[in-house]
Amino acid sequence: MTRVDIRLTPEEKYQLITRNLQEVLGEDKLKELLKERDIKVYWGTATTGKPHIGYFVPMSKVADFLMAGCEVTILFADLHAYLDNMKAPWELLKLRTEYYEAVIKALLESIGVPLDKLKFVRGTDYQLSREYTLDVYRLSSQVTEHDAKKAGAEVVKQVESPLLSGLLYPGLQALDEEYLGVDVQFGGVDQRKIFILAEKYLPNLGYKKRIHLMNPMVPGLSGSKMSSSELDSKIDLLEPAASVEKKVKKGNRLLFAVFPLAPPQAHLPLGCQSFLRGGKPRKQRGAVFRQVCAVPPLLSQGHRRLCDQEAGQVRGRHHLPLL
Amino acid sequence: MTRVDIRLTPEEKYQLITRNLQEVLGEDKLKELLKERDIKVYWGTATTGKPHIGYFVPMSKVADFLMAGCEVTILFADLHAYLDNMKAPWELLKLRTEYYEAVIKALLESIGVPLDKLKFVRGTDYQLSREYTLDVYRLSSQVTEHDAKKAGAEVVKQVESPLLSGLLYPGLQALDEEYLGVDVQFGGVDQRKIFILAEKYLPNLGYKKRIHLMNPMVPGLSGSKMSSSELDSKIDLLEPAASVEKKVKKGNRLLFAVFPLAPPQAHLPLGCQSFLRGGKPRKQRGAVFRQVCAVPPLLSQGHRRLCDQEAGQVRGRHHLPLL
Repeated sequence: MTRVDIRLTPEEKYQLITRNLQEVLGEDKLKELLKERDIKVYWGTATTGKPHIGYFVPMSKVADFLMAGCEVTILFADLHAYLDNMKAPWELLKLRTEYYEAVIKALLESIGVPLDKLKFVRGTDYQLSREYTLDVYRLSSQVTEHDAKKAGAEVVKQVESPLLSGLLYPGLQALDEEYLGVDVQFGGVDQRKIFILAEKYLPNLGYKKRIHLMNPMVPGLSGSKMSSSELDSKIDLLEPAASVEKKVKKGNRLLFAVFPLAPPQAHLPLGCQSFLRGGKPRKQRGAVFRQVCAVPPLLSQGHRRLCDQEAGQVRGRHHLPLL
Repeated sequence: MTRVDIRLTPEEKYQLITRNLQEVLGEDKLKELLKERDIKVYWGTATTGKPHIGYFVPMSKVADFLMAGCEVTILFADLHAYLDNMKAPWELLKLRTEYYEAVIKALLESIGVPLDKLKFVRGTDYQLSREYTLDVYRLSSQVTEHDAKKAGAEVVKQVESPLLSGLLYPGLQALDEEYLGVDVQFGGVDQRKIFILAEKYLPNLGYKKRIHLMNPMVPGLSGSKMSSSELDSKIDLLEPAASVEKKVKKGNRLLFAVFPLAPPQAHLPLGCQSFLRGGKPRKQRGAVFRQVCAVPPLLSQGHRRLCDQEAGQVRGRHHLPLL
């Protein structure tokens, strides 16, 4: 199992925390903090659809954070999911969040992350409180429409008649940093403009500016990023075999979808490589899919070994299909 | 004192409720309701500055509502005041609301309105509750930016970089109708677009569409309407004599500022009429000001008599200046 290594130097912790990231905002502050104490990190996910294989990427970073001695909070942003253009009807949110929690826990377990080092929080646990709500109003009395719209441009679904909720979303995410009591927010680079808004406005409310760590995005099968709420762009963790085969047949973008951060073919069996170059015999597609399910590319050797050991178990528990 | 006359017919109540209004939305529904029972009305005021003499106009309608057997709630919208472009710094809101309550109570007493028939509520009493906040989010997931902006156009201060809070304002005012449990919202015609938004969106949340009653506006000394937060546009109830004189000297718009609903010069002493035509001897300005303080134009004979009796007392209590 992944364990905090208390013998790591601040510099080693810094390297572990920031490896494979696309961008770090607040590098110096992060280094300073690590000299003083272990840090608190939060990663949030809006429960807008079933988690897909791309979730392995942030989860492998969560593993890094834990190894570096961080306290990590995973926020299930159920209220955000509701706000984001009504993707999740309110009545379904509770059930969906329960599903997310089960899937993400299994996913973390499959790559050897001990759950006792993590905290799981739901947005509605605190985002409807009097104190938080007052801060939402305080913040919205400082944030311009222009800044709110700009901040949400890459995350809030862009529609012809945008809803008011889409403008609230970024401010709430900024306030979460304060209410979750963290030093760092971690997310995909698609969150960059929200992080900038948080850095700009939190100090106006008397709260400290946080450090921001950004992952590269996992590209989707169709579209710029893999999205839980867009069926055609993602391969779901529980996707039926027939559906996976159909999606894989549609194009050869799977490589880019699943292995964007690793040297492209380094971890792939030879069969997969030829599959991804255009030759697509059935057994090679099967090999790719097993890779997707069982060996996330960013894992350390130790992780991969653990994952191999647990693969059967995980697959059995979640009925992961094999081509 | 003004008392509910239980012998009024539904038609007589309707006439009393709607007299001197500029517009009624839901006329038929109002007539139907009055055949069944007495109705509940709400009037809200954002505590953005010190109340001015224009407040006599809605207060005289509140008197009408009470005479017609209505239950009337006056909402001190302290949260709205905060949202409206930060006119009221948060720390001052509580004190300001206390001042509003004292002034409005005195104002109602001066025109013979019994306070025991009125309910005073502050926005922050319920607008930060979990239930209300969830409804704000539900509503903002339905209201488009376009509709929110349009609704607030005449009420929210229009600035170069509009704040997010200005877009929230109209939705909150719509929800107030549900949370105050009223049949009717009453306000100036400047609220018309907000009322339209409320009529459009409340039914989407499963709440009933309310009746809307609209007053003509009291024009300001400078600008389109008298505004509590714009010193140059208003004559304050507690305005120092020197300041009133200065404002009156600036123009001859006082007639339109104070007597927009009555036949222009019907209630004015002869001296005031000549003053308003351009001759401005000192004692005539004084006469106008006494009129402003003591004899609101829309009051019934009974009101005026009561007001005359109480004028000295009210003036003494609140240190109303005389020119």
